[in-house]
Amino acid sequence: MIDYDRFLSDYAKSVRASDIRELLKVVERGGVISFAGGLPDPNTFPKEEIAQIAMEVIIKHGEKALQYGPTRGSAYFLEAVREFSKMNGIPVRENEGIIATVGSQQSLYLVGKTLANPGDYIVTEEPTYLGAIQAFRSSGVRFLTVPIDEDGMRTDKLEEVLKEAVSEGIKIKYIYTIPTCHNPAGTTMPMERRKHLLELAEQYNILVIEDDPYSYITFEEREVKPLKAMDESGRVIYLSTLSKILAPGIRLGWAIGPEPIVAKMELVKQGMDLHTPTLTQYIAAEILKRGIIDRNIPKIKRIYKEKRDAMLRALEQYMPEGVKWTKPIGGLFIWVWLPEKINARKLLNKAIENGVVFVPGDSFFPNGGGKNTMRLNFSYPSPEEIEEGIKRLAKTIKEML
Amino acid sequence: MIDYDRFLSDYAKSVRASDIRELLKVVERGGVISFAGGLPDPNTFPKEEIAQIAMEVIIKHGEKALQYGPTRGSAYFLEAVREFSKMNGIPVRENEGIIATVGSQQSLYLVGKTLANPGDYIVTEEPTYLGAIQAFRSSGVRFLTVPIDEDGMRTDKLEEVLKEAVSEGIKIKYIYTIPTCHNPAGTTMPMERRKHLLELAEQYNILVIEDDPYSYITFEEREVKPLKAMDESGRVIYLSTLSKILAPGIRLGWAIGPEPIVAKMELVKQGMDLHTPTLTQYIAAEILKRGIIDRNIPKIKRIYKEKRDAMLRALEQYMPEGVKWTKPIGGLFIWVWLPEKINARKLLNKAIENGVVFVPGDSFFPNGGGKNTMRLNFSYPSPEEIEEGIKRLAKTIKEML
Repeated sequence: MIDYDRFLSDYAKSVRASDIRELLKVVERGGVISFAGGLPDPNTFPKEEIAQIAMEVIIKHGEKALQYGPTRGSAYFLEAVREFSKMNGIPVRENEGIIATVGSQQSLYLVGKTLANPGDYIVTEEPTYLGAIQAFRSSGVRFLTVPIDEDGMRTDKLEEVLKEAVSEGIKIKYIYTIPTCHNPAGTTMPMERRKHLLELAEQYNILVIEDDPYSYITFEEREVKPLKAMDESGRVIYLSTLSKILAPGIRLGWAIGPEPIVAKMELVKQGMDLHTPTLTQYIAAEILKRGIIDRNIPKIKRIYKEKRDAMLRALEQYMPEGVKWTKPIGGLFIWVWLPEKINARKLLNKAIENGVVFVPGDSFFPNGGGKNTMRLNFSYPSPEEIEEGIKRLAKTIKEML
Repeated sequence: MIDYDRFLSDYAKSVRASDIRELLKVVERGGVISFAGGLPDPNTFPKEEIAQIAMEVIIKHGEKALQYGPTRGSAYFLEAVREFSKMNGIPVRENEGIIATVGSQQSLYLVGKTLANPGDYIVTEEPTYLGAIQAFRSSGVRFLTVPIDEDGMRTDKLEEVLKEAVSEGIKIKYIYTIPTCHNPAGTTMPMERRKHLLELAEQYNILVIEDDPYSYITFEEREVKPLKAMDESGRVIYLSTLSKILAPGIRLGWAIGPEPIVAKMELVKQGMDLHTPTLTQYIAAEILKRGIIDRNIPKIKRIYKEKRDAMLRALEQYMPEGVKWTKPIGGLFIWVWLPEKINARKLLNKAIENGVVFVPGDSFFPNGGGKNTMRLNFSYPSPEEIEEGIKRLAKTIKEML
C-alpha cells in the first residue's frame, strides 16, 4: 500500500475544501433552503439565444472556434469585450492590455502568481471574497486586512494599515478590493472612499486589484464609478466576468491592466492551461456583439431586485433585536452581524436541523475573526423560499439567544 | 511613470514566451510552410455534429450546463469519460479518482503543484513535451533527464539516473513520460521498456505521470498497452484529452489516478478557476455518449497516416546523408537528428528565408542540449505542403553543410 501523503507538496497538504462547497452537499439532500451558494438564478440565462448562437458559431467559425487559440484570448472575443467594457466606462487604454480567463477566479490566481512571492504582504478587506483568499494563498502571501462597515472598506483604517506597514519595513504588493456590491458583504463604497483609496495607493506606490463582477447588475441609482475609470496613473488591474450577466458555466472572465503586467499574466497562464476554451469565447463574443447581454441585464436586475427586497423585508419582519445587516444596491449577497454571543458555526448546525443554510462569516476572514457574522445569498432561492428561509433562520437565532 | 517590474514576482520575471508561439507569428505573415505548431487538421473536427449537439444540450440541459458546477467536473461528463476510458482499456478502478481539466495542460500544472515543492527533483525524457516543462517549472522543480532513442525512453539510462540519485541522497517526486507517439520525438516505447519502467518505479517507490494524448490515434498495429493498464500498485497518474480526437478548442482533458492525489488536485484547482466550463463538458459528454468520437477516430487516423507517409517519403527523397529521423506509428510529430555540426537555431533563420519553419529541438531539453535536433509536425499542413516544405528544408540543410 502506497503512502500517498509523502508524495504531496506542502501546498497540497495545506489546502482545505471550501466550506461553501461542503455545504452544497447538505443542500443536495433536499428539504433545505439554501442561502449558502452564490449561484445566479438560471431563469436569467438567455438559454434559447445561447443555443442558437452556439450552433451558428460552430457552423460558421468551426475551423477556428474548435482549434487551439492564443493564450491572451481569441481576437474575436477580446474585441467584443473591449467594446462592451468601453460602453460601460472601462476602455482598454493605450499601454493597457486585456486577457481572457477561465472565470474571474483564474484572473485572481494569475494576478496573484504574477505579483507576489511567498511571504509577501497584500491588503484585502475583512471580510473578503473566499475565492480570492484561496487564489492568493496559493502564492503564499500574508494578509493584512481592513475592516468594512455599511459603506465597504474603511479607508481611514486602510491608511493606518499602510502607515504601520511602512513603519515596520513591510512592503505591500497590492490592495485587493470589491468596491461595488461586495461579496460577501453586499456593500458599495461611496465616491469619497474610492478617491481616498486611490490617493493612498498613489502615496504608498501600491497596485490595486479591483474585482468587479457585480457593478453591471446594480438596481439602485448610486453615484459611483469603478476605480479603474478613476485611475490616472495605471495602477488599477480591473477584473470582471460574464458569470453574473450571462452564465457562470461558460466560465469567461477578463482582466484589464497595465500591459507589462497583463503580458506576464499571459505567460503564467500558458503553463497553466495554454488558453481559455476557444469555443466558449466564440459563443460569448457573438452574444456580446448581438447585444444580448445588454438586453438581458434589465431582466436580471428586475429578478434580483425582487429577491433582495423579499429578503430585506423578511429580515425586518422576523429577525430579533440585536441582529444587523447590510442593504445592498445590487449583487447577490447580504451580510449579517449577529449579537456578539452567537457563534455562526454553532448556529449553522442548528439551522441545518431547521432546514436552512448559510455561510458562516469567518470563512471570509483571512486571518480569523467574524465569528458572529454570516453571508446570505438572495439570487438563487425564490422569493417564497427567501421568506420561509429567513423565518426558519430567525427562529434558530431566537432559540440560541 | 510606474516601474511595473518591481511589482512582479520572481516567478513572473523568470517565465519566457514559448518559441513555438513566437514562430506562429512568423507563419501568420504567409508564404511560409509550417511544421512548427502542433495543430490538429481542422478537417478532423466533426463540426456539424458538434453544432447540432451544442444546440440540443443547451436547450435540454441549459439550467445545469450554464450554471456553476463541481470542481471535480460535471457528473454527466465524468461518467461519459469513464465509459470511454474503460472501453479503451483504462477503467477508473476502486480507490481511484478522475478529474476534468482545461486541457491536459491543466492536468500537468495541477499534478505538478500537487506533488512537488520548489527545489524537488523530477525525471523526464530528453526531449520532452514543452508544455510539461513549463507546467512543472512553475512549481520550481529541478529536472533529471533520460535520453531517448527510436524506442523512446532508454530505461537502462533511467536506472542509472535513479541509482545515482539515491547515492546522492536525492529524492525524486515523479517520473513524467509520454510512452506512446511521443511529443516531440514521435517514439513509442515497446512493452519491455514499459515493464522495466514500472519495475523501477516500484523498486525506487516513485510515482509515474503518464501523458497519453495520442494512443487513440495510432495507425499501425503495435503490441503496446498504456502504463496505467499495467499499473498494479496504484502508482500511475494517467492524463488524456479530447484535443486530438475531437477538437482542442473545447479544451477538455482529464486525469485518472489514486483518489488521495486526485482529491488534492481538485482542491488545488478550486483556487485556480473554480471548475472547468460546464458548457463544454455537457457538449463533450453528449458527443462521447453518441459515439461520435469512436466514429471519428478512423477518419483522423486515415488523414494523419497519409500525411505521415508523405513526410517520411519526402524525408527519404530529399534529405542529405547524415540526417536521421523517427518513424512514428501515430501522433503528430517526427523528430530529426541533424549532423552534429548543424545548429538547428541557425538553420531556422535560413529556413524562414526559404519559406519553411520547424521547432528547434533544444526547446524540448529541460537542461539544455539537443542543438542539432528539430521537431516536425505533419498533422496540420497538407500532403502537398509537406512535400514542398521538406524539399525547402532539405535545400536549407544542404546549404549549411
